[in-house]
Amino acid sequence: MVGGGQLARMSAAPAAALGIDLRVLATSRQESAAQVVSDVCLGAHDDERAVLAFADGCDVVTFDHEHVPGPILEKLEARGVAVRPGPRALINAQDKAIMRRTLEGVGAPVPAWRIVDSSAQARDFAETMGYPFILKTSRGGYDGKGVWRVESASYLDAVMSQPLPPGAVWLAEAAVPFSQELSAQVARSPSGQTAAYPVVRTVQTGGICSEVVAPAPGLDPDRAVDAQRIALEIAGALDVTGMLAVEMFDTGDEIFVNELAMRPHNSGHWTIEGAVTSQFENHLRAVLDLPLGSPNVREPVAVMVNILGGDVGDLYSAYRHVFARDPGVKVHLYGKDVRPGRKVGHVTAVGSDPQSLLVRARHAADYFSGAIDE
Amino acid sequence: MVGGGQLARMSAAPAAALGIDLRVLATSRQESAAQVVSDVCLGAHDDERAVLAFADGCDVVTFDHEHVPGPILEKLEARGVAVRPGPRALINAQDKAIMRRTLEGVGAPVPAWRIVDSSAQARDFAETMGYPFILKTSRGGYDGKGVWRVESASYLDAVMSQPLPPGAVWLAEAAVPFSQELSAQVARSPSGQTAAYPVVRTVQTGGICSEVVAPAPGLDPDRAVDAQRIALEIAGALDVTGMLAVEMFDTGDEIFVNELAMRPHNSGHWTIEGAVTSQFENHLRAVLDLPLGSPNVREPVAVMVNILGGDVGDLYSAYRHVFARDPGVKVHLYGKDVRPGRKVGHVTAVGSDPQSLLVRARHAADYFSGAIDE
Repeated sequence: MVGGGQLARMSAAPAAALGIDLRVLATSRQESAAQVVSDVCLGAHDDERAVLAFADGCDVVTFDHEHVPGPILEKLEARGVAVRPGPRALINAQDKAIMRRTLEGVGAPVPAWRIVDSSAQARDFAETMGYPFILKTSRGGYDGKGVWRVESASYLDAVMSQPLPPGAVWLAEAAVPFSQELSAQVARSPSGQTAAYPVVRTVQTGGICSEVVAPAPGLDPDRAVDAQRIALEIAGALDVTGMLAVEMFDTGDEIFVNELAMRPHNSGHWTIEGAVTSQFENHLRAVLDLPLGSPNVREPVAVMVNILGGDVGDLYSAYRHVFARDPGVKVHLYGKDVRPGRKVGHVTAVGSDPQSLLVRARHAADYFSGAIDE
Repeated sequence: MVGGGQLARMSAAPAAALGIDLRVLATSRQESAAQVVSDVCLGAHDDERAVLAFADGCDVVTFDHEHVPGPILEKLEARGVAVRPGPRALINAQDKAIMRRTLEGVGAPVPAWRIVDSSAQARDFAETMGYPFILKTSRGGYDGKGVWRVESASYLDAVMSQPLPPGAVWLAEAAVPFSQELSAQVARSPSGQTAAYPVVRTVQTGGICSEVVAPAPGLDPDRAVDAQRIALEIAGALDVTGMLAVEMFDTGDEIFVNELAMRPHNSGHWTIEGAVTSQFENHLRAVLDLPLGSPNVREPVAVMVNILGGDVGDLYSAYRHVFARDPGVKVHLYGKDVRPGRKVGHVTAVGSDPQSLLVRARHAADYFSGAIDE
């Protein structure tokens, strides 16, 4: 697995359980996954030599993030390495302009969009679509970075005067008046077997996923099936292997695809405790072309609340309070240095009532972040 | 954790989730836990220098097995290392004669027993108790080794002519006419907090635990409470810290304590999927004196079937069949070389009907061992 973040760290448990040797390419021994995995190669994901050396001896190469440059992926494939997902799928998770064009091509519902090369073109877009609209860089964004909500023309020049990431273009998109955000996750293997997880509700705070409720409470069953169908169609049409997360806007009447991620995803952390097979296990099973595990829920409801870095540097000290108060919550810390707003862990609670589970998980997460101290 | 076996390997997942740095003392990089843990010290558990070097920098030292010699444990304690469980508790899991005496002292029900120094003394014991009776070495036994069922006097001399392990004596015990074997597991922290898991039924085949059903089907609720009470009393009386497994004989009318293990135990592997908090997580929480997690079941029934080594050296090749046939079973392989009869993994299935779960888990385990091939 290229990348030493928390997704690789959480992949280590199912890899050990299944007896799969997991090698991680990390930038330092202190990275989240490198702390807990025995087979670590040090190097950068965009250093061709490092990636090739890492891949030497791997049966399959997969990813903790989508930032490995396409030419490196193609070189791996040319050497006979199984790259899953492959570069032609992964480009859609790397470049939002390509993704939008591909999704339109396969008939997936997307917000109105246009590549804009200048603030004049962006103003043209806004004249048709109205303000506010969304401005994005096609590449290099994550966790709310690289996305702006443009309320008026005067804001445009300031945003677009910033330098674009390498290879990126500006993308203007209609702001979808959504009532909630959804995520539909599917696993797909090279043989074409698929497994669809229940569609979940995600809550973003400042562009960062902060809460997930699985399944999405009150979601119309027909719309849930639609969302799963769209995710399965995208996985098939793009030849995705491994986990695919399709983030969607739900307006109450329609759903629109927002983003794609081709790896385990924050919206699926609940599956560790909440599903028969976690997204991390099914990602491994999918990229190894093993039959997939059941994506069914184990309890009626699972909630996940992210722990964001706050004032307290020592997360461990919270355990005494959090665990004494609630012997049922499950805590995952990522071994990361605490920085304000950084995802440093998450809390999961499973049961039957979303509201009471959210209260429990939020309390634990807030105690770790230092937002509450009782 | 001293010892690099599958118990240390399965402790790695909750350690990573909780952000606890797990260091393992293993005899080689190929040992089960050493394959998956990043912080491995190489050395033998009975090499004082190796154990002291390993413990340097550890907040707490705990164990994957009970074979560390008492004098080394005492030296660790003298140096201020927190040893959990401590040597005065652990001696009862190391020496069955001391354990029997201690259990009698605390009023726990044990089979009639006697230390026998010669086959003449063993014959005396048999004259009172009758044949068959059980002959054991007080130290050095595991997985059925070091235990003999003596059917007649003629067998005695052959058994007792074998050399005893270092420090061991011969122990004669009445053969308890049990209808089933039980295991009661509890976690206990240095602060004295305890958590009792449901009492399970274990099935031994050739002295090796082969199957576990949790909770024990049809067990009288009062007897289940008795078994939990006995385990909690032993944990308290012996000042056990971490997980304690009390293996018991159930005659239908009475229960008798057979063995003690002060670590995660084969009879608790079902807790990974079947309980809110696994035995591995609660062992870590207990030895670190963190509040314990809920030991409650997540589904009405969990079954665990061990995978014993058979004719097939390549366990991985079974996945295609096992996973395609049953997307719901959970497989844990230990990364061990296959040897006939050796525990190389286990299969867990959770649900509501013990019989159908056993059929599913046995099929998967038998397919791994090569006992069936369809």
